[in-house]
Amino acid sequence: MIGGHVDHAARLAAFARGLSEAGISAALISQPQDLYYLSGTAQPCNLVVVPGGEPTLIARRFAELARRESAVERVIEGGGFAAVVRELERHGVTGGRLGLELDVVPATLYRKAVAAFATFEVVDCAPILLAQRAIKDATEIAAMRAAAALYEAVHDTMAAHLRAGVAEHELAGEVLRALRRAGHAGLVAQRRWDAALQPEGQLASGPNLAVMSGGPMTVSGVGLSRAVPFGASARRIRQGDLVNIDLGLNLDGYHADMARTYVLGEPSHLVVEMARVVRAVQDACLEAVRPGAIAGDVHAAGLGAARELGVAEIFQGFGGEHGPYVGHGIGLELDEPPVLGPGVTTVLRAGMVLALEPKLLSPRFGAVNLEDDVVVTDGGCEVLGTVPRAVFGVQADGSLDPIL
Amino acid sequence: MIGGHVDHAARLAAFARGLSEAGISAALISQPQDLYYLSGTAQPCNLVVVPGGEPTLIARRFAELARRESAVERVIEGGGFAAVVRELERHGVTGGRLGLELDVVPATLYRKAVAAFATFEVVDCAPILLAQRAIKDATEIAAMRAAAALYEAVHDTMAAHLRAGVAEHELAGEVLRALRRAGHAGLVAQRRWDAALQPEGQLASGPNLAVMSGGPMTVSGVGLSRAVPFGASARRIRQGDLVNIDLGLNLDGYHADMARTYVLGEPSHLVVEMARVVRAVQDACLEAVRPGAIAGDVHAAGLGAARELGVAEIFQGFGGEHGPYVGHGIGLELDEPPVLGPGVTTVLRAGMVLALEPKLLSPRFGAVNLEDDVVVTDGGCEVLGTVPRAVFGVQADGSLDPIL
Repeated sequence: MIGGHVDHAARLAAFARGLSEAGISAALISQPQDLYYLSGTAQPCNLVVVPGGEPTLIARRFAELARRESAVERVIEGGGFAAVVRELERHGVTGGRLGLELDVVPATLYRKAVAAFATFEVVDCAPILLAQRAIKDATEIAAMRAAAALYEAVHDTMAAHLRAGVAEHELAGEVLRALRRAGHAGLVAQRRWDAALQPEGQLASGPNLAVMSGGPMTVSGVGLSRAVPFGASARRIRQGDLVNIDLGLNLDGYHADMARTYVLGEPSHLVVEMARVVRAVQDACLEAVRPGAIAGDVHAAGLGAARELGVAEIFQGFGGEHGPYVGHGIGLELDEPPVLGPGVTTVLRAGMVLALEPKLLSPRFGAVNLEDDVVVTDGGCEVLGTVPRAVFGVQADGSLDPIL
Repeated sequence: MIGGHVDHAARLAAFARGLSEAGISAALISQPQDLYYLSGTAQPCNLVVVPGGEPTLIARRFAELARRESAVERVIEGGGFAAVVRELERHGVTGGRLGLELDVVPATLYRKAVAAFATFEVVDCAPILLAQRAIKDATEIAAMRAAAALYEAVHDTMAAHLRAGVAEHELAGEVLRALRRAGHAGLVAQRRWDAALQPEGQLASGPNLAVMSGGPMTVSGVGLSRAVPFGASARRIRQGDLVNIDLGLNLDGYHADMARTYVLGEPSHLVVEMARVVRAVQDACLEAVRPGAIAGDVHAAGLGAARELGVAEIFQGFGGEHGPYVGHGIGLELDEPPVLGPGVTTVLRAGMVLALEPKLLSPRFGAVNLEDDVVVTDGGCEVLGTVPRAVFGVQADGSLDPIL
């Protein structure tokens, strides 16, 4: 469990203020991470938040657990929208705008909600809650620092098991074993309907590094079959290969998102060059992260550095397929707003935690990828992870040498 | 990769017939498993199916891969709904009912679709496709038989690593390592917006077996924290404990869903009794599965056997919290229609693959859980897995003894 006191009452009050400011009469929250953030429980519940009123947690199942875990005092039992309507009536709310998490609620359920809340205008309240969640408190930052330290288990696994002849999926198995032992929750939370990730992330090697496949990733790997065409494949790793791992680290619900590239044996001159360049690009991103900057500035800084260093054509992809981002927010979910992409005007503020993930991809060498998480501080930002920001050479004795 | 020839043209033609019969002018398919089933590729695409016309795959990214993998001949590039509208116009379809997968498409995207397809009535076509997908062909059944055989890796891991003192999450790590080595895809596919699963499933022991927590599961485990309150916990397993594992086995996109309960050491009389009872209840379910039976019959058979054996109060839960099912369809997703629950009238047909999962839960002993997958045959059904349907005692030397 994360340490420190979490002030759920303050979170609920801030969310209620956000609803008021948006002219929303009430919100119905059902998504597990949103529930956990606001109430302290991720049990299956409907949370009714009415500005100026007492919040109610309606337990759909397992009411005893919900009651034990919840920081919301009023916990009742009931399923379906009818119980929500009754609760709204109890608060005297019978019309106006009703906020649901429309970015995740499926269309069939949305249509049922529109019918059940016929006297309301059903609107999306997820952006309000996600904007609030974007600013982490001290307890959350401590939790994410601990999550980022989980990467040490990955790093140690690479030292122990990255050898010629091991297959990507076998190496993935070793990573999973190490992570689960170290306390990884075993899954990564994402607000996505059309993509999933293996908990060990994208593990890829050699020519697979320059194949962009599957979901929203860039260095994706090709997977074990066309049915799940990303992540580790059955390819056996060879001496001299580059190996990349890019993964979400979920510790007690809070995520880090980190990536490192390893070289099995001695790196070529080109790889040494690319290792230095990707680090320089990430340095440029780090320098751009400070309160008052906008999200797009960070992307511009990374792209600018890539241009200056002559690698713009292989920055975040190649051949016309470039990921339109250099990073993203992170927290109870692996991908949170803001996207650090061109034109995104979200103002960065102290307490935001951002993943910075410049990568260079080319069929000439594969990919080098460097992802780290930073918290925005009053003066700039601070890296949360503990493993040096470098590409690493892996020697036959298991020693790891940063390429600097 | 699964062996055998997949006739995607026949699948597309059958889906087009289903659309016609439902009075739907065209369908837009975007969900990875649906795409893979109909086209052979799971790359990010929009598939446009017009009854009587040639299907078109619109690659949103990675067009080269989509083209290489796709059984659909016409592959074009383009993003967003505008490209879909153009393709519909090309087929002369400018109005009527347009089918989308509304069970998974989020509300925000649905609302954009309603605006973009303003001349259409947007309807849900997922039930049509899922009804078609429910009947597996010989290639799919072979794939699922291979997926069920993956359970041997779990069973062997229990023999090798289930010892007093090991923590649930450490044991989960060993299971994951073994599964990933054996070819597990590393994730389980589900049409759910509000729940995720660890790939090693629900691993739980001792008193944790009688805690129903988290998502849609019954024997859920309690997880490592309240943020992810299901799956393996940090509890150290003790001599005499019951240990349950219930998991999805994804091999090349097709799933098995299996559960076994293990006893560390000698089982008590009560556990021996419960092991026999859960097997008898599953036997009753197996006997009820045949073409022409309805889904509800299988649940009734299981509940009937539980009543006869005096365990109705602990069948699928206890204390008023009973899972309203004894099984479900399975295939490219872990949970597919039909639910084998009371009142479900779906007629069972040869080629359906169903997971049968009776379980007995009680604070007195924890839980015994037995889940196996069967294919409906002309004469009844056939179990797909290879590990005996039993509760197993685990001895100190790693031998596993079925409790019969």
